[in-house]
Amino acid sequence: MKQNIYDDPGFFDGYSKLRRSTEGLAGAPEWPLFQALLPDLKGKRVLDLGCGFGALCRYLAEAGAAKVVGTDLSEKMLATAAERTSDPRIEYRRGAIEDLRFEAGAFDLVVSTLAFHYVERFDLLAAEVHKVLPAGGAFCFTVEHPIFTARPEQAWHLDAESRRLHWPVDDYQVEGERRVNWFADGVVKYHRQLSTYVNTLIDAGFAITRMHEPGITDEALKQYPEMADERRRPIFLMIGSVRR
Amino acid sequence: MKQNIYDDPGFFDGYSKLRRSTEGLAGAPEWPLFQALLPDLKGKRVLDLGCGFGALCRYLAEAGAAKVVGTDLSEKMLATAAERTSDPRIEYRRGAIEDLRFEAGAFDLVVSTLAFHYVERFDLLAAEVHKVLPAGGAFCFTVEHPIFTARPEQAWHLDAESRRLHWPVDDYQVEGERRVNWFADGVVKYHRQLSTYVNTLIDAGFAITRMHEPGITDEALKQYPEMADERRRPIFLMIGSVRR
Repeated sequence: MKQNIYDDPGFFDGYSKLRRSTEGLAGAPEWPLFQALLPDLKGKRVLDLGCGFGALCRYLAEAGAAKVVGTDLSEKMLATAAERTSDPRIEYRRGAIEDLRFEAGAFDLVVSTLAFHYVERFDLLAAEVHKVLPAGGAFCFTVEHPIFTARPEQAWHLDAESRRLHWPVDDYQVEGERRVNWFADGVVKYHRQLSTYVNTLIDAGFAITRMHEPGITDEALKQYPEMADERRRPIFLMIGSVRR
Repeated sequence: MKQNIYDDPGFFDGYSKLRRSTEGLAGAPEWPLFQALLPDLKGKRVLDLGCGFGALCRYLAEAGAAKVVGTDLSEKMLATAAERTSDPRIEYRRGAIEDLRFEAGAFDLVVSTLAFHYVERFDLLAAEVHKVLPAGGAFCFTVEHPIFTARPEQAWHLDAESRRLHWPVDDYQVEGERRVNWFADGVVKYHRQLSTYVNTLIDAGFAITRMHEPGITDEALKQYPEMADERRRPIFLMIGSVRR
């Protein structure tokens, strides 16, 4: 919990070279689906939990948001994010998602991409997001998919010639910590059932408006030929919801 | 589509010996979760799509429903269902789920257990259910989980000593027909992404109220010791929803 793996030099270096890090939103094949999930941004106050290098914050401001607060635990990522913009509507704050507190109704929209699987208590997080939104406010996020986080290996099952046979799932209903080796050893993630994300949102006072398990379209496959296996198992889960 | 596999002699014989067939609801470990999903049944008009041997219909009537209509495509199953009750509140109708038509607002609750993965067009089904319910009417069902239906083999990945290594997932985002060998060869099921169930319900005018991917509790494990692996992958998906 509150693990700051992104400031680990090896992790930061590896993560910085990902296509989604170097190219921003254009390097994230699921971006068009996430973009379609967002409400009209004109004049909106937006909170981005786990903003990383700030690509989404910059998009939100350019699309008309009145105020964008991006938060992250990583000092290095926030420094890079700050270097990449001088937009006065964007403000970056350092802190763990679990520790951030804002005033009730302070935002109209809360977004987060690929951060919540590092958070142990999704119930507390959902309650805090509910607090900072007014009725009708939107909460849209992506996380690593439960099919992807179930096993700590997070890897294809290969045959003797290293061909990908299938994606292995195990301990799906056993929620909790998974220690994953990804750019660094022992990165702590939290596996939750998909139904846990849904029920926690409902219990916190949200209505689910949309869910995606992005694969790859024929069109996108031309741009990302290395992603041909992205129809074999979902790697991300995307949820759109509205505060009731 | 509209495949009547349940009247295949070999299939019927095999299916009839399942614990959930011989013991009814008590032989279905997920039953308490489904029961908790149901609204108050007193005086309600209930439709059970794919009622099989009628165990759920009998429970609904005994729990106070004013009228229960159970439908199934299998002549043999409906004959057995009819033999097991003389309750005047229960009526059985033969027909494929896709072909059944009822008057608008004819029911207060629609339920279905483990039938919709035989139906090709979940969108048409959801629209029809929406039509037969009034605003606030509930729609609660179970289907085989997309993790379970993704591969037509529907089987654990085993090692050389036949030990269960993990549950294999493949072609998750490739929706459509799966020909499965289960009590009979070439049983036709339809694989859909979990998000497709959710989005189709939302688009048809339902609000999701609860979702479960039943595992096995410590308590239930004492009663069903053969189910120790039911924490390793979900076999069923359970969804509660309300017509908006």
